[in-house]
Amino acid sequence: MIDSSLKNKIEFILVEPSHPGNIGASARAIKNMGFKNLSLVQPKDFPNDDAYYRAKGAKDILDDAKIYGELSNALEDSTLIFGTSARARTIPWPTKNSSELTSVLKSGLQSNNAKISFVFGREISGLSNEELQMCDYHIKIPTDEEFSSINLSHAVQIISYVIKMELQNKEYVSEFKSESTTFQDNEYLIDHFDKVMKTIDFYDQENPKQVKTRIRRLVKRLQPDKLETGILRGFLAKIEQVLNKKN
Amino acid sequence: MIDSSLKNKIEFILVEPSHPGNIGASARAIKNMGFKNLSLVQPKDFPNDDAYYRAKGAKDILDDAKIYGELSNALEDSTLIFGTSARARTIPWPTKNSSELTSVLKSGLQSNNAKISFVFGREISGLSNEELQMCDYHIKIPTDEEFSSINLSHAVQIISYVIKMELQNKEYVSEFKSESTTFQDNEYLIDHFDKVMKTIDFYDQENPKQVKTRIRRLVKRLQPDKLETGILRGFLAKIEQVLNKKN
Repeated sequence: MIDSSLKNKIEFILVEPSHPGNIGASARAIKNMGFKNLSLVQPKDFPNDDAYYRAKGAKDILDDAKIYGELSNALEDSTLIFGTSARARTIPWPTKNSSELTSVLKSGLQSNNAKISFVFGREISGLSNEELQMCDYHIKIPTDEEFSSINLSHAVQIISYVIKMELQNKEYVSEFKSESTTFQDNEYLIDHFDKVMKTIDFYDQENPKQVKTRIRRLVKRLQPDKLETGILRGFLAKIEQVLNKKN
Repeated sequence: MIDSSLKNKIEFILVEPSHPGNIGASARAIKNMGFKNLSLVQPKDFPNDDAYYRAKGAKDILDDAKIYGELSNALEDSTLIFGTSARARTIPWPTKNSSELTSVLKSGLQSNNAKISFVFGREISGLSNEELQMCDYHIKIPTDEEFSSINLSHAVQIISYVIKMELQNKEYVSEFKSESTTFQDNEYLIDHFDKVMKTIDFYDQENPKQVKTRIRRLVKRLQPDKLETGILRGFLAKIEQVLNKKN
């Protein structure tokens, strides 16, 4: 048996799903594995009869689904974010095979306020680069190299199956000990870096976005806790304060 | 990379699927995992546009799908048969969790003529008891106890994902060394036992089916090889011969 308090810390986010049937089938898929949290970012057509028809006994999941206008809003309180993809990406980002999740998931679940988000992209085009960069990890669903185009709800089914197996096979602790930073905390930290770097003209004029992306990647990999984030932001604020006095 | 000769020894059988969309989605699901063999037993409506629409890039799997009137015909050359179910059954039959397949699959794949069948039941009612008794093993898809009603193509997706992971994570040998008995060989053996037992009035008059079921279960668990089957059938034939002479 899996501690349901652990399962409730997991959520599934579908970004701009265009077929309502896929939303319903995804709701059924996650409920089949004992999960309940579903969020939708700009669904093309929802609520919709076909979604409810395909959900079968998982209509409650659809009733409780949260709807957002932007992925960044859906992620605000997330403490750990996985972007899913059936394709290998060229971006050098930490990538997890779905069977190698254990250590990351285990430490991610230890915090009091853990909210672990699995993000699924559009049926045709997947997640944008910007959306992928909001994620702490990317998971490649191990489809056949010659036919990787997997149905959205089937991708949700595999990932939710793998997480269920993860949670029930390993010893996941349910005494939470720390406070994790949220997506929003990290965004504030990245923006703060960005602001200070602009102030001190640190950026390469020809390619300013490149540096911000590197900072973002660094913060995502670091996964700072609340205390560390406080120190870093204090440091940045102090730099700003000193610069202000100088001007 | 998985040896494709191993993957080609795996087939997926859908018994009386009523929604053509599920057939198409199942074809896509198995191709996503690099498999290609799909068989259909009395599909309610096939070929069908919705099946082809849902198959997307897996239309070749549908074109090549084999269609049968009875499960026993589809299984004739099968050397190892798994029945899948989301429900726990009351029949005491060897049951495998989908994560415990390794040893059975490994030895099953070692024979020259290996043909390993995964059988999926009807959307509403699953497999009948008779069909389940044709299987060597039952696999329970580990759905949540409170909501086990999983979509057919999603069940196919999970099982095909698990087999793909199995085949690529373990050292599966591809030098085949023995000849496995087929489903049909075993049926002949069971029928032969049945015939002789009837001849010698072995059967409990009140419950004759019970004994045949026990023999069936015994043969399924034994998984005799060709030589052993030959010995057993020779023994049974000898009994018949001796009895005939007596009369």
